[in-house]
Amino acid sequence: MSDQYKYDLRGVSATKDEVHAAIKHLDKGLYPNAFCKILPDIAGGSAEHCNIMHADTAGTKPSLAYMYWKETGDMDVWKGIAQDAMVMNIDDMACVGCVDNIILSSTIGRNKNLISGEVIATLIQSTSDFLDEMRANGVDIVLAGGETADVGDIVRTIDVGYTAFARMKRSDVVDINIKAGDVIVGLASYGQASYEKFYNWGMGSNGLTSARHDVFDHAYAKQYPDAYDPNTPEKVIFTGSKKLTDQVNANGQQTDIGKMVLSPTRTYIPFIKKLLQEHRSDVHGMIHCTGGGQTKVSKFISGVKVIKDNLFELPTLFKLIQEESGTGWKEMYQVFNMGHRLEVYLPENVAQQVIDLAGSFKIDAQIIGRVEQAEQSGVEIKSPFGTFEYQ
Amino acid sequence: MSDQYKYDLRGVSATKDEVHAAIKHLDKGLYPNAFCKILPDIAGGSAEHCNIMHADTAGTKPSLAYMYWKETGDMDVWKGIAQDAMVMNIDDMACVGCVDNIILSSTIGRNKNLISGEVIATLIQSTSDFLDEMRANGVDIVLAGGETADVGDIVRTIDVGYTAFARMKRSDVVDINIKAGDVIVGLASYGQASYEKFYNWGMGSNGLTSARHDVFDHAYAKQYPDAYDPNTPEKVIFTGSKKLTDQVNANGQQTDIGKMVLSPTRTYIPFIKKLLQEHRSDVHGMIHCTGGGQTKVSKFISGVKVIKDNLFELPTLFKLIQEESGTGWKEMYQVFNMGHRLEVYLPENVAQQVIDLAGSFKIDAQIIGRVEQAEQSGVEIKSPFGTFEYQ
Repeated sequence: MSDQYKYDLRGVSATKDEVHAAIKHLDKGLYPNAFCKILPDIAGGSAEHCNIMHADTAGTKPSLAYMYWKETGDMDVWKGIAQDAMVMNIDDMACVGCVDNIILSSTIGRNKNLISGEVIATLIQSTSDFLDEMRANGVDIVLAGGETADVGDIVRTIDVGYTAFARMKRSDVVDINIKAGDVIVGLASYGQASYEKFYNWGMGSNGLTSARHDVFDHAYAKQYPDAYDPNTPEKVIFTGSKKLTDQVNANGQQTDIGKMVLSPTRTYIPFIKKLLQEHRSDVHGMIHCTGGGQTKVSKFISGVKVIKDNLFELPTLFKLIQEESGTGWKEMYQVFNMGHRLEVYLPENVAQQVIDLAGSFKIDAQIIGRVEQAEQSGVEIKSPFGTFEYQ
Repeated sequence: MSDQYKYDLRGVSATKDEVHAAIKHLDKGLYPNAFCKILPDIAGGSAEHCNIMHADTAGTKPSLAYMYWKETGDMDVWKGIAQDAMVMNIDDMACVGCVDNIILSSTIGRNKNLISGEVIATLIQSTSDFLDEMRANGVDIVLAGGETADVGDIVRTIDVGYTAFARMKRSDVVDINIKAGDVIVGLASYGQASYEKFYNWGMGSNGLTSARHDVFDHAYAKQYPDAYDPNTPEKVIFTGSKKLTDQVNANGQQTDIGKMVLSPTRTYIPFIKKLLQEHRSDVHGMIHCTGGGQTKVSKFISGVKVIKDNLFELPTLFKLIQEESGTGWKEMYQVFNMGHRLEVYLPENVAQQVIDLAGSFKIDAQIIGRVEQAEQSGVEIKSPFGTFEYQ
C-alpha cells in the first residue's frame, strides 16, 4: 500500500492542500517570509510593535494518551499532552523571535463519558507547572484561562488546543533570510534537556496518526473503538505489532513503547531566548520542524538549496516507526522530525558557539547541513537510507 | 426520565461543576466580578490598560449542521456555525465593554472522511464576511488566522472554535455592579436585526445537545452515526418526532425545523458599542445569557434578588423544544435563552432610551424585570409556566 494511499484512507494529509487553498487569499501579514504570521500592532497601535496570534493543538496524540491511560492508569501522559499543545504554539512563535510575554488560552473539548474530571484537572495543573518551569528558565508565559466543554457528540475522547498571543517590537522580529553559505545547526529532539524531568524520545506532535496506527497492534481496534475514526478502512487501523506496554531498552534508558511515542514535545524556547540575546544578528532563520518534518524549510527559501548531509543518528523511536510501517524513507523525513526539531541557519563561524550554547542546556546540537546557491530552490537530504530531493 | 439523569446519560452538564473545580484556584483577574476575566496589560505593560483573552466554540451545533448539510446539500448552515463560534466570544467580551480592536484566531478540527474542503472554505469565507458586516456597523474585529487540522481520530465530524484577544483601557471596563432598584432591559434573541440578512429564530449556542436529541427523530441515529457519541444509551439519542426538513410557519416566516434550530447566534455588539457611547455611566452590568440561560446573572450578584417577571413571549423554537423534550420549565430557563440573550442592568429612567436604541437596530427590547434588595441573592422567574427560584 502506498504511503499516500494510506494517508488518504486515514483521512489525513502531510501537505494540507485543501486548507492552504481555502486560506490562500488571506493576508500574509507584515513579514510574509517569517515563520509565523506577523500582524500590525492592533493591540497597541504602535508603528514600532507588532502582534502575533497563533493556534495549534496536540493533534491526534490525545487519542494515544487515552489508550495508554486506560491500559495502565498512568495519569502522567496527560501532562505530556498539555505540553504538546503549548509547545506547538510557543516554539513556532520563538522562531520569529517572540520569546517572552506570551499569553496562552486553552480550548479543551472532552467526551465526559470517557474522560474524567481528574484528566481535566491534570491538564490544567500541568500547564501551570510547565509555565513555572519556563519562568525558572527566564521565559515568561502567562495562562489567561480557557474553555473546557463537554462535547461528546463532537469529540471521541479529548481535543486539547492552545491559542497564544504576543505583542513585540518589530526590531526583534526574526525574518527568515536564509543565504548561500549558511550552515544549519540542528538541535536534538531527544535526550534530557536541563529543564526536563525525564528522558525524551523525541516524538513531537506530528505524524501521530501514522505512528499510532502503524506501530500498535490491531487488537486495540476492538478494545478502544473511541481511539479512531470508524469510517477508516479496517486494514489501516492499528496495523503494527507492538503493545503499548512492550518494554524498550535503548540509549541507556528503559521505557515502554506507549510512553516512547507519547514523549512530550520538547520546547527549545529557553535556548532560543539566549541565542537571540547573544547571536541575534547572526541568525538568518530558525525553523521548527513540525508539519513537513525535515522539509519544512522549503517554504521559506528562494534561490538556494538546503543540503542536509550530517543529520543526527536516527533515534530508536523513528527506526521503530519505519520498521513497523514500512514507510518509504523519503516520506519518513517529510512526516517526522527524525532527530532534530529545531534548526538555526547562520554563518559557519558562529556555529560552534551556538552548539556550545545548546550544550549548556544539555541539548545535543551539531551542524546538520549547509545552504548553497541554486537556480531551483529545494531541500536535499543525504541519509544512510538514500539521498532524497524535495522541491 | 429526570432532566439531570438525561444530561448525565448524554455526557453534558449545565453547571460544569468538574470544570469549575479544576480551575477554582486559578487567578480571577483584575476585576473578579466582570463578565470575562480581565488580565493586566501583559501585551503593553501599561497601568492604564488591560488585556482579555477569551476562547469558545460552536459546541455541538456543528453536529446538527453536518446532518442538515448531508440531508439537504445546503452549505449555508456552515456560515451560521462560523458565526456561532465567533459570537460566543465577542458578545462575552462586549459585556465587559470590549467592543473594538478584537483579534480573532480560529481552531478547526475536522474529520476529512466526512467534511469536504468546501466546508472549510465556507467557514473561512463566512468569517471574513461576518467581520466585514461588523466593520460596516462600526465594530473593528481582525481575523489573525488560525489552525485547521485533519484529526478524524479525535473529531467525529467537525469542531469549530475561536479565541479572541483584546487590549483596552481599564477606564472602559464595565465591571458588574447590579443594584437594588435597577431595571433589566432584555434584547430579543430572535427577529431580524438591521445587520442580519435573514430572520433569526433565536437559538444561540447553548443547550444544543438537548435540542438536537430531544427534537429530532430516532431514524437519524442509524442514518448519521457520526452525529453523536455511540457511548450514549440509545434511549436518549434522537428521541423527538421531527424531521430536519419538516416545515414550520410562525411569526410570518416559513422555514424548516433544521434551519430553525441552526439559527446563528445573534451578535449584539453593534448595539453594545452604541450603548456604551451614549449611556456608559448608567450601565450597571450586561449579561450574555449563555451557559445557565436566564439564570446566568446569578454568578454576578450579591445582596440582591433579580426578578424577571415580564419576559418576552416564548419564541416558537423554545416551545417546540419543550414540547418535544418534556423538560421541566424551571430547567428550560436554566438551559436556553428563552427569548433574550442579552440583558442590560440600569436605572429605570434611561430604560426607554436604551429600548429605543435597540429599536434603531431593529432589535426588540423591553423591561423584562427588576432588581430588589435581598438577604439571600438569587434569581426569580415569573413565567406563564410558573414561578421559579434559583440560587
